[in-house]
Amino acid sequence: MDHVTFIPTADQMAYTFGGAAPVVRITPPTVLTLWTEDAYGGRITSAADVATTALDTEDLNPQTGPFWIEGAEPGDTLVVHLVDLTPARTWGASTLIPFFGGLTSVPVSPTLQDPLPERTYIYEYDSAADTVAFSAHGSDFELALPANPMLGTVGVAPARREVRTSLVPDVFGGNMDTPEMRAGATCYLRVNVPGALFSLGDGHYRQGEGESCGTAVEGAMNVTAIVGLVKGGGPAWPRIESDTHLMCVGSGRPLEEAWRAGQVEMITWLGELYGLDRLDAYQLLTQISLAPIANVVDTNYSSVTKVDKRLLPAAAAFGGVHQEMRSAARAFGTITY
Amino acid sequence: MDHVTFIPTADQMAYTFGGAAPVVRITPPTVLTLWTEDAYGGRITSAADVATTALDTEDLNPQTGPFWIEGAEPGDTLVVHLVDLTPARTWGASTLIPFFGGLTSVPVSPTLQDPLPERTYIYEYDSAADTVAFSAHGSDFELALPANPMLGTVGVAPARREVRTSLVPDVFGGNMDTPEMRAGATCYLRVNVPGALFSLGDGHYRQGEGESCGTAVEGAMNVTAIVGLVKGGGPAWPRIESDTHLMCVGSGRPLEEAWRAGQVEMITWLGELYGLDRLDAYQLLTQISLAPIANVVDTNYSSVTKVDKRLLPAAAAFGGVHQEMRSAARAFGTITY
Amino acid sequence: MDHVTFIPTADQMAYTFGGAAPVVRITPPTVLTLWTEDAYGGRITSAADVATTALDTEDLNPQTGPFWIEGAEPGDTLVVHLVDLTPARTWGASTLIPFFGGLTSVPVSPTLQDPLPERTYIYEYDSAADTVAFSAHGSDFELALPANPMLGTVGVAPARREVRTSLVPDVFGGNMDTPEMRAGATCYLRVNVPGALFSLGDGHYRQGEGESCGTAVEGAMNVTAIVGLVKGGGPAWPRIESDTHLMCVGSGRPLEEAWRAGQVEMITWLGELYGLDRLDAYQLLTQISLAPIANVVDTNYSSVTKVDKRLLPAAAAFGGVHQEMRSAARAFGTITY
Amino acid sequence: MDHVTFIPTADQMAYTFGGAAPVVRITPPTVLTLWTEDAYGGRITSAADVATTALDTEDLNPQTGPFWIEGAEPGDTLVVHLVDLTPARTWGASTLIPFFGGLTSVPVSPTLQDPLPERTYIYEYDSAADTVAFSAHGSDFELALPANPMLGTVGVAPARREVRTSLVPDVFGGNMDTPEMRAGATCYLRVNVPGALFSLGDGHYRQGEGESCGTAVEGAMNVTAIVGLVKGGGPAWPRIESDTHLMCVGSGRPLEEAWRAGQVEMITWLGELYGLDRLDAYQLLTQISLAPIANVVDTNYSSVTKVDKRLLPAAAAFGGVHQEMRSAARAFGTITY
Repeated sequence: MDHVTFIPTADQMAYTFGGAAPVVRITPPTVLTLWTEDAYGGRITSAADVATTALDTEDLNPQTGPFWIEGAEPGDTLVVHLVDLTPARTWGASTLIPFFGGLTSVPVSPTLQDPLPERTYIYEYDSAADTVAFSAHGSDFELALPANPMLGTVGVAPARREVRTSLVPDVFGGNMDTPEMRAGATCYLRVNVPGALFSLGDGHYRQGEGESCGTAVEGAMNVTAIVGLVKGGGPAWPRIESDTHLMCVGSGRPLEEAWRAGQVEMITWLGELYGLDRLDAYQLLTQISLAPIANVVDTNYSSVTKVDKRLLPAAAAFGGVHQEMRSAARAFGTITY
Repeated sequence: MDHVTFIPTADQMAYTFGGAAPVVRITPPTVLTLWTEDAYGGRITSAADVATTALDTEDLNPQTGPFWIEGAEPGDTLVVHLVDLTPARTWGASTLIPFFGGLTSVPVSPTLQDPLPERTYIYEYDSAADTVAFSAHGSDFELALPANPMLGTVGVAPARREVRTSLVPDVFGGNMDTPEMRAGATCYLRVNVPGALFSLGDGHYRQGEGESCGTAVEGAMNVTAIVGLVKGGGPAWPRIESDTHLMCVGSGRPLEEAWRAGQVEMITWLGELYGLDRLDAYQLLTQISLAPIANVVDTNYSSVTKVDKRLLPAAAAFGGVHQEMRSAARAFGTITY
Repeated sequence: MDHVTFIPTADQMAYTFGGAAPVVRITPPTVLTLWTEDAYGGRITSAADVATTALDTEDLNPQTGPFWIEGAEPGDTLVVHLVDLTPARTWGASTLIPFFGGLTSVPVSPTLQDPLPERTYIYEYDSAADTVAFSAHGSDFELALPANPMLGTVGVAPARREVRTSLVPDVFGGNMDTPEMRAGATCYLRVNVPGALFSLGDGHYRQGEGESCGTAVEGAMNVTAIVGLVKGGGPAWPRIESDTHLMCVGSGRPLEEAWRAGQVEMITWLGELYGLDRLDAYQLLTQISLAPIANVVDTNYSSVTKVDKRLLPAAAAFGGVHQEMRSAARAFGTITY
Repeated sequence: MDHVTFIPTADQMAYTFGGAAPVVRITPPTVLTLWTEDAYGGRITSAADVATTALDTEDLNPQTGPFWIEGAEPGDTLVVHLVDLTPARTWGASTLIPFFGGLTSVPVSPTLQDPLPERTYIYEYDSAADTVAFSAHGSDFELALPANPMLGTVGVAPARREVRTSLVPDVFGGNMDTPEMRAGATCYLRVNVPGALFSLGDGHYRQGEGESCGTAVEGAMNVTAIVGLVKGGGPAWPRIESDTHLMCVGSGRPLEEAWRAGQVEMITWLGELYGLDRLDAYQLLTQISLAPIANVVDTNYSSVTKVDKRLLPAAAAFGGVHQEMRSAARAFGTITY
């Protein structure tokens, strides 16, 4: 298996899905060792850096990539297995940004109310304890929380000639902002253009479901991933597989439409795996679905439909590629989960 | 503590929150031993009973109650601790009902498409194994699933003179359809009218998050609950506490509004428990919220905001009444969780 | 034709659809001469009366009625023809109410932002010029606007034993807040309970489509109406007919669901009038529909689907009752439109 | 004033806003004489051409353009005055397309229901009578409707490096599908990239508000427009001015968000024209807003906020450019409205 290391310089980052030239061409399966800048472009470094003065709103959520995947053609399935996510800094940051987030009015749904005050929270990352530390601004409340590194953004170039900012989640993946995108997870994405043009970024040291205020504990991340390709079989919406769960991520607005998209995708998947007709799969899903919200803050909202594999008969999704990549990752010698 | 047993006859059931005369007056805290009919009014008994011919659409989701709570006044907090939920039949039923459910058009959002076909699924309940059995209609796929008894509907009379059908979830509780409403959970509801007029029903032997097709594994249920009263402090939206989690349930449409309501309620709760200002609570919730969807099928949708108590400093919500009721329940001698 | 005059005293007003005892029994067709209090219950009388101090939030939007309609049974069509609406005061009032309106966060979809400032606008009504006068608070801008008297609220008791506040629009009519409910219009409502229990109120001297801030130029109103009954044929959603237009009013959330409900109702109506199948009616409506929004501020939003009768062949809806009532109204001798 | 004529060949059409090379560079103000292909790319020519077999889903809604506007820089205001729209064919076509339209489930909000049947309606255009003829499929109902030529799509390149399909309406204009985009209207769009990269297309010989089934009476169009530039002042959302009305077009999902965007844009505009503070403008708009829905079928929905200029004091928007262009158009000698 090839092994490619790529650490982007500031001018090598991408801010869109589609529309950016590939930084590296890889032949799947390839192990990638990557570094990703945080969603602020590294511009928030202390509690004094508030969004309106520190951020460049044209250059948010930089992506590492895109990677050209040799042999990838529209309709194929790109496979991205996250082997390891390790915080690349000793701190992360979360900011209350005016007119951004789930509990404020936003430009696409404006009100006449004033914005919320700005605040930037710095979370020290304790690598020994594997925690991030919350400190209140309005009181002396402090709390250490377990780190749970994840990637907010994983995606490919969209179809129909489109170029979308890295802030948007949609059928091509993108900024889904689900904590399920963690080490050990395998993400399946439909290829829309030759070469797939895959990229990732938006490291979170920890995030709750929904990403309420709009920003997680954002931080630069060291990423190890295996990228593979299954010919054909590209799913309509992103799918994620872990050792324990099958997941589908729908994105859209209003939130129930994101949920519907993820549900129908899972019904399709259960049909593929178990030969269930669509009504039987609908019925079964009714009784076993987990439905954690991913984000209610981005231009599209994202909702995860999640099924515990342990409730179901054993089945090998996409030819068992998740297990293969898990085994390959263990063979590196450094993976302990 | 008083102990009241009430098994309603067919003509004693309530179909509304508000508007029904109380069946029993109790002095809190009181232990209630109850039986609840299923949401179909017991009219679905085999796979041959499909919704359009078997159901009485005017008499759906019968409630056991309402109970008049002595001393309960508007603004108080009704406390309902679920001690035990045990299936009262050897089978449950789930039905695909035309123009009802999450993946079909519905009367309040109609399309011109034909309805989905009707199907009724009977799930045998194996009390020894504590499982319910799914059998596909379109193939020979069968699967035993762990039972997870819960109540779809817990509520009080609404404010502003309203009477609402038992099919609706709202600020008064009602048909929230969340699997979190299981044995061991304590539900807090704001009292809106003198006596509170509390009722419950809609037993589910198992349900996934979202209740995709609109009906869980519906079944009659034996219910043991302790009902208490905290003067004042009535929450804006229903709250639930378990040994491990704090939860707030928002209901509304579109789904993001239900989520927002639950989020703001949790921010209020975190403020009460830890003295956090609202922006600090917003920030903290961003990193620790769990957000399982409850239902996307009822007239209002419901979304749960859920926080793991083990991440937080110890705190006694509502004066520690959950722990008191847990202890009291254990003292009955039959509670093993 | 009977003629009944009813001027409610303060304790005779209704605040709900359903749940209130009838004030008068009438035999259709009957001419009603009525007076309606404004939606504030008459508590706003000057610019110094702001909502949070002046209003009684439990007693908003008082209705005149309900009227028991002899012979009305579930499934019938109640016919309400508005003969005349005349402002009953020399001024109306519109208020910016905290956390109420279309361009602020609201309790059912909360944010953490502060409320907008309160302001009360008094509009002098010039009966000679038939205008209402806007005066800005922040500058000396003044503007006389044509009066356009209408009723925000017309409805009957709901089905399924429900009692709903007069603030809500739904299938039973209620607080639809559309400027189409003006003199010369005939409203058709499905009867849900014996006697129909019809009431009306919420006079507006003028309102834009959407009722942006949540309150029109609210004022007490003198109302002349003819109430009739057509056996059977009750529409799924409220319909309105004028000399020039057919209209259907859907209500719900999100707003597209209100629009869908009104559209499908119109497709049904076009099918009834012209024998069109549903796909042909859908196609025709696509090219002729007008779609003025009614309100985006109430608990449900309302959307009007409106068709110009002059584009269509002549047809007599509901047996031509609109024309009959128009003729009867002209025969009173006072109607000049 | 320059006068440029451009009739695109099949390979000169654009399918995106942004991402396409300019076809012509013009110096504002310039009169453009253009031809636009229909949204089907001319592939529907008879009732036998149904969407699933006749259409190329990758090449829908071809645009004429983009035009590079000399001197246009981000933040400027592009001015597009529609002088004349004349049907370029003797017939138009409207199609029921599976899983597309306002009264069917759609891929972004899927259900498990079957699609509606396909139907293609050909409308003969009678240029003498200026009508289009509807013929039912399921009966012999026929109806001549007044033609009302308009453009569904007018837009510029988006910001943030994005490229969007011509099927989407958003802040950059695009596929708003409002009947207000007719001859005599002036559209104001914020310039996002150097040269603006403006294009237009999607001729409709007639369309109802909402574009219910997703396709109007689609047809190739001869277009005369004047394109101008106002330095600075670019609006947040598209604005339209006619001799009688001011309009703002918001787009988004759910529909109330589109409405909110248009409302706040109009509040800003009223403030600019009359010096009203935002609360006064909100209040005034509440009483004078018209709110015709534009489309409930595209990826974003569009809603128009519309104000009758005759209710307001005279004011010259954008320096009076609308009147200037109207005068210039009359000077051509062929404009009679």
